[in-house]
Formats: sequence, C-alpha cells, structure tokens
Amino acid sequence: MNEKEKEALLVTLKECIQNKDVAKLRELFDEYNVVDMSELVSELDVAETLFIFKTLKKDVSSSIFSYLSHEKQQDLIAHFTGPQIKDILDNLYSDDIIDFMGEMPANIVNHILKNASAQQRLEINKLLSYDENTCGSIMSIDYVKIKENDTIPEAIERVRNQGRTAETISYCYITDTKKKLKGYISFKELLFAKEDDVVGDIMDTDLIFVKTSDDQEEAARLIQKYDLTAIPVVNDEECLVGIITVDDIIDVIHEEATEDIQKMNAISPLEDTYLHTGVWDMFKSRIVWLLILMISATFTGQILAYYEGVLAEYTTLTVFIPMLMDTAGNAGNQSSTMVIRALAMKELSPKDFLKVWWKETRVALLCGIIMGVVNFLRVIIFMNQVDIMTSFVISLTVFVTVILAKLVGSTLPILATLLKQDPAVMAGPLITTLVDAMALITYFFLVQKLLLPFYVG
Amino acid sequence: MNEKEKEALLVTLKECIQNKDVAKLRELFDEYNVVDMSELVSELDVAETLFIFKTLKKDVSSSIFSYLSHEKQQDLIAHFTGPQIKDILDNLYSDDIIDFMGEMPANIVNHILKNASAQQRLEINKLLSYDENTCGSIMSIDYVKIKENDTIPEAIERVRNQGRTAETISYCYITDTKKKLKGYISFKELLFAKEDDVVGDIMDTDLIFVKTSDDQEEAARLIQKYDLTAIPVVNDEECLVGIITVDDIIDVIHEEATEDIQKMNAISPLEDTYLHTGVWDMFKSRIVWLLILMISATFTGQILAYYEGVLAEYTTLTVFIPMLMDTAGNAGNQSSTMVIRALAMKELSPKDFLKVWWKETRVALLCGIIMGVVNFLRVIIFMNQVDIMTSFVISLTVFVTVILAKLVGSTLPILATLLKQDPAVMAGPLITTLVDAMALITYFFLVQKLLLPFYVG
Repeated sequence: MNEKEKEALLVTLKECIQNKDVAKLRELFDEYNVVDMSELVSELDVAETLFIFKTLKKDVSSSIFSYLSHEKQQDLIAHFTGPQIKDILDNLYSDDIIDFMGEMPANIVNHILKNASAQQRLEINKLLSYDENTCGSIMSIDYVKIKENDTIPEAIERVRNQGRTAETISYCYITDTKKKLKGYISFKELLFAKEDDVVGDIMDTDLIFVKTSDDQEEAARLIQKYDLTAIPVVNDEECLVGIITVDDIIDVIHEEATEDIQKMNAISPLEDTYLHTGVWDMFKSRIVWLLILMISATFTGQILAYYEGVLAEYTTLTVFIPMLMDTAGNAGNQSSTMVIRALAMKELSPKDFLKVWWKETRVALLCGIIMGVVNFLRVIIFMNQVDIMTSFVISLTVFVTVILAKLVGSTLPILATLLKQDPAVMAGPLITTLVDAMALITYFFLVQKLLLPFYVG
Repeated sequence: MNEKEKEALLVTLKECIQNKDVAKLRELFDEYNVVDMSELVSELDVAETLFIFKTLKKDVSSSIFSYLSHEKQQDLIAHFTGPQIKDILDNLYSDDIIDFMGEMPANIVNHILKNASAQQRLEINKLLSYDENTCGSIMSIDYVKIKENDTIPEAIERVRNQGRTAETISYCYITDTKKKLKGYISFKELLFAKEDDVVGDIMDTDLIFVKTSDDQEEAARLIQKYDLTAIPVVNDEECLVGIITVDDIIDVIHEEATEDIQKMNAISPLEDTYLHTGVWDMFKSRIVWLLILMISATFTGQILAYYEGVLAEYTTLTVFIPMLMDTAGNAGNQSSTMVIRALAMKELSPKDFLKVWWKETRVALLCGIIMGVVNFLRVIIFMNQVDIMTSFVISLTVFVTVILAKLVGSTLPILATLLKQDPAVMAGPLITTLVDAMALITYFFLVQKLLLPFYVG
C-alpha cells in the first residue's frame, strides 16, 4: 500500500466510524493486512480507536493491538474495561503480552493483572520475571505439544486442537512425563508420514534448544546456524517451557547489530529507536565516552607538549599533525571494525589470532607503501616550502603509522575477547586515541633520529 | 554438540568409512543434525567424503552438500560422476543450487550444466541471470501452488504432493491462468478451515510481494514488517516466479548490517567473511578511503599552516589540538552513527529533519556544557602552565565544537539521503575530517578574537 492509498483508506475508515458502519468496518479489516491497518489505527484518536476495538472480532482487535506503539497501547489499556483487557490477554501470544507489559508503568501493569484470570496472572508474572535480553524474556508459551505414542492422525488432530492459539505449527514438541524435552517433529514431516507411524519412532532427537537464562543472541545464532523457524526453550531442569520464533529473532538480530554499531562509535547502547529516545537518555548515552576520550586525548597532547621545543623551531612540522592523526585513526579503525564484526558473527575466534595477524601485516604493508609513496609525491609536488628530507620523514611516518595502527586495531578486539570484555566497547572507541598517540610518538622519534641531525649537520 | 563430542564423533565417522560400515554411517547421519554432520564432513578428505556421498541417501547427501563451504563443494563437484551431479541438483532447493553455482568458476558451472536435465538447465540459467543482491538472485522456485477452486481436502492433498520438494509449506499460493498472483493462504489456515470451504473464498488477497529486480533488502524489510516466514516474488508481469524464505533473509540482514558497518568505517563493502577474503581484496577495500581521507586531512593541515605565526608565538596552543580534533570527531561520529542507523532501519526519513535537528541541538547543548566545564576544571587544576583566560578559550572551543560537530553529524546523513546517496558512505568516513577542520577554525577564531587581544592588551 502506498502513501496515497493509505490516506484514502484512512478517510474511509474515519467515515465508517462516524457513521457507525460496523459491517463495512469489519470488511475493511478483513480485506487489508493487519500491519497496515494498525498503522492507520495509530492515526485515530482514542474515541475512534475504542469504537474500532468494540466493533471488531476479538482476535482481529487483539492482533491490531499488538502492532500499535507502546504509547498508544498504554493509552488504550487505561480506557479499556475489565472484560476488554481479558479479551486482549486471551487472544494475544504470550510473547506479545510480555513485550507490551514490559514497557508499561506499574499502575497499568497492575490494572492489567487485576483483570487477568488467575492462570494468566501466574503465567505473566513468571514471564515478566526473566531478565531482559534473555531467551526467557522473549519466548512464547504458545507452542504445540504432542505425545510420543501418538499415531500420525492422533498427532495431527492434536495440532488441530492446539494450533489455533499456537504461535507456529511448524514444529511440534514431544516431552516425557516430567515435561523434559525428548524430541520434535516438523509439521511437514507429520504431513508426509505414514498413517500408522508412531510419533516416537519418527521424531527427531537431535535437540537444538536454549535455556531461559541464555542470552537471546544464542537463540539467534542457533536459529541462523540450523535454518530453523522456531527454537524450544527449556528451564534449568531441561523441561520445555516455551519457544522463540524466527520473527522475534529478526528483531534481536537488528537490535544486536544496532548495539554493536553504537558501542563501536562511543555510544552506550540505547533501548529504543532514535525518535523514541528522550534527550536526557541520549545525552547520558553519549557523554560518558566523550569525557573519557577527551581526558585520554590529553595524553596525546602531552606528547606535543614534550616536543614543544622542536615544534617551536620547525613550525612546519605542526602542519602534518592532523593528517598523521587522521590516517592513524582511519587505518586502525578499518582493522578493528573488520575484526570486531567478524568476532561478533563468530567467523573469527581468538584462536585465529595468528591468521589475523598475518593477514593484517600483509594488508598493512601494501597500504603503508602506497600511502607513504602518495604522501611523498603529494608533498614534494604541492608543498614547495617543504624540502625532500622532511617529506621523506613524514612519508616514513605515514608508512610506519599505518602498519602499527592496523596491527593494534586487529589485536585489541581479540585481546578484549580473551579478557572476556566486549570487543566493540573496548576496542571501538579507544582505538583512535591509542593510535593517535602512536602516530605522534613515531613522528617525533623519526624527526629526532633522522631529520634534526640532518638539519644540524 | 560441544567440541569434545564433535571430535569423538569425527573419529567414529572415520572408523565407519575405514570399515565401510554403511549401516552405521546411515544411522549416524540419521541421528545427528545435518548442519553438525556437515561440519564433520568438512574435516574429511576427498576420498572419505566421496565414500559418504556414495553411501548416504540422496536427500541426506544433498542436504549435507548444501552446508559445505564453496571450496569443498567445488572440490566434490570436480570428482562427482554425471549421475551424482544430477542427484544433487534433483534434491537441492533451487536457491541453494544458485547459491553454490554463483561461486563456482566457469568450467565447474559448465560441468554441472552438462549433467543437468534440459528442464534444470533452463531453470538454473534463468536464476543465474538475476543481478546480485536482487530478490531474483536469492529466491527459490520450490513453492506450493494450489488452485482457487480447490476444496480444502483437495488443497491439502496438493500440498502433500508438492510439499516434499517445496522449501516451505507455511504458505500456499494461488495464481490465475496467466500465472498472475491472486492470493495466498497459510497452511495453518488450511488446517483449520471447514472441509467444504473453497480456497478462493478463504484465501488472503492483501498481497505482500517483491519483484525479481527489487533489492533483497526490500524483501527483508517486508518480511520483518509483516512477520512473515516467506514472501512471494513476481516478475514484471506480476506473475509468480518464486519465493524467498526467512532463513535466507536472516543472512541478508547480517550481510547488510556488516556492509553498513564497513561503509561507516571507511571500508568498501566486502563480499566474503574475514578469513575468506584475500589480502589483495582487503587491501583494495581499504586503500581508496585511506587515500581520500589522507588528502582531505591536508586541508586541515593547511588551517594550521595559516596560523603558523600564532602557533610559533604561543606554542602551548598546539598541545590542545589533538584533544580538540578527537572530541570533534567523537561528537560528530556519535550523531552521524545514530542517524545513519536510524535511516537504514527506516525509523527515520529525511522529512523528520526538524525533529532530528531539535533533538540533536538539545543533546549537543547538554554535552557541550558538561564537556566545556570539565575541560576548564581539568586544565586549571592539572596544567599549571596554562592561565585561566587560555583555559576559558579552549573550553569555549570544546563547547562550540561539540555543538557544531553534532549538528553536522546529524545533518550530513540526511542530506546524503536527499541527494540519493548512501548515507553510510557519504557521512561515515567524511564526518571526522569535516569536523576536525571545523574544530580548528573555531579554535583559531576564538584565539584571535578573545585570547590575543587579551595578551596584547
């Protein structure tokens, strides 16, 4: 649906509400996709939305509800009657309930729990108790269970009975009497099995699962590695307690990539999207690293202070400082970025250190030579006031700096991993400051060893 | 399976091959997950692998084949007999065929095509003709088609017939006589429909689809937005030609995030993983931006050259240059990172410019004030040689720089988007150089306006 169609549909929607045209409303919500309709509902005011929720079938309105923003959900819950809240809870998947309840203030949560059935209350409280970003916190308890001694028609009948409320029927799970996970079978396999097969004989027992306390990234990794559309979640006793479906994993993958990008760029990870994050939270996520890096850059400044005498005498040397610092930062950053991302994607592990080091050394040599040569030519051609010897020393500094920066940039993330630190945090923001200092030290070392004797001589 | 279990299993596997214990081999491959077994097969030599492929059932060996590395696949294909190649092609999903054929050298591709059936050859050539990173290039042609006037039992029977070779049975698609996509129905809905329902009456017609020429990111966006597990692909005539499943989309999401991270850090995107990328490709992906940024940093140096006189007289001023440049770079980078990522996630669009600008202004003011104050205190407490007025001017520079850097950092990506450029490429690497220059200009402007008159006066 494009923007124009959306606007036209919104007008129709508002007219239907105005005229209390229930039949037309239900037809519209039947015809169009629930995600698109939710976007339109977001544009309505509370009275209009409440009318919609009173009019539509419970499963449709619950589905719409799950796609609204947390602000809108909170608004609606505050206006909902007890039975309406109960209907929503009845018709939502458990992970969607937890998803929106996790964002509500305490009074709204209480309001919801007061209107939930005893069973619902128990389940919700249990689910809300899992730590953020764990598998428990994103799992759904609406999955399909079948029995080991079911025949195929019996199993299919069981799926038919549970499937309506289940989040997916792609996999059916088999547990023993203590609820311990024993096997699984895809619905596709059930469909192609012979009538007289027994579930226990054809189920898969190569179990791939996560624990409730595992990081959600582990579920994402396994779902990707084994091409799954859902993964079972077990508790500490290895009893099946829920599943995580691939649609939630896609969100996890996006979140984790965003977090890594933020951490690599000196930002403490933010929970919410850009527009939904307040100024204060955004300030807090940035100021810490800005301060740390400002203070650490002071040490780079101290290197200049130490060589103040040299700089005062040969002021031209100052002109190359920004270029040297930037080149060091860029070269180091390139290497650390590649290694941090490869570590995050599990394409690399610390034991590959020698391979990384050998590859970076060769890449650094190539980059260093080209950079040094181009810099030398650039300086002697365009900067007449600089003599050849100075130009040579500066180019040599570029060469050495690129190599050092690349080696430090690739080593630091691996070192961080070995020290059980997050490489994105440890290596990302700090790399620039570190290689800046190295560039300046190299510069003045070479100036003192090669250039000054030449001038004095 | 942990490392230890894997090693033990590998030993068993090699023993079975040695003893030509076919029964045991088949049992092992039946018991363990195909992804894990593929990892073990990767460790075997060619002769051992060929024995495995001769021994196992065709569907199992094809599945194992699809999880091997491209190098290993190429090795095997070169050793396979004609009928073996045909079996692999028969048993692989079309997207997996294209995935590995896309990476093979021409002689291997010809070797494969020579052994394919006429029908297979036609399909493969068609699929290979789609541009890289388009929906056509990652789609599978193995989907389930049902008829509009099928009754439910007829439709389920059709799924049963096609489902074995279909990549997913989650959705069944309905086309008209010209193969134009008319609707879809999830298998779950089929399972819960009444026996005498007709597919045409209950199918969903709110079609969500991509075209073969669309960027694969579009498929990823829609699958995420609408929580799908597969999306249909149509050609220019809107005829159904394939589907893309969510497991391939997860790979797309990872790839795109990796690409964005690389682009933001001055690296031209690489196709392959870190360890699989050669030194030469890695060099090429890095040297271009290193050179561009080295040259552009020259202009920053020219600012210093312009103020050489001032720096020669007041050498202390040089000491603060690294801190000012780093602070500017970090502050600008934070903002551009947030905005680039939000644009990529479609959480922001250029029309939100004013909202972004207003938010960044307030965050920048907060950051600027804190940074300025901390810097002022730091300098007067720890740097005895610097007087209060100099310290004030430097801190004022920090304050102004942080604000300018944040505004430029957030504006540049939006501007790039408006100019139909990739914000990650345009804004990522260039931001540091740009704000570095701004920091130095601000510094010398304030020094000349406030500090020098003070000294002279």
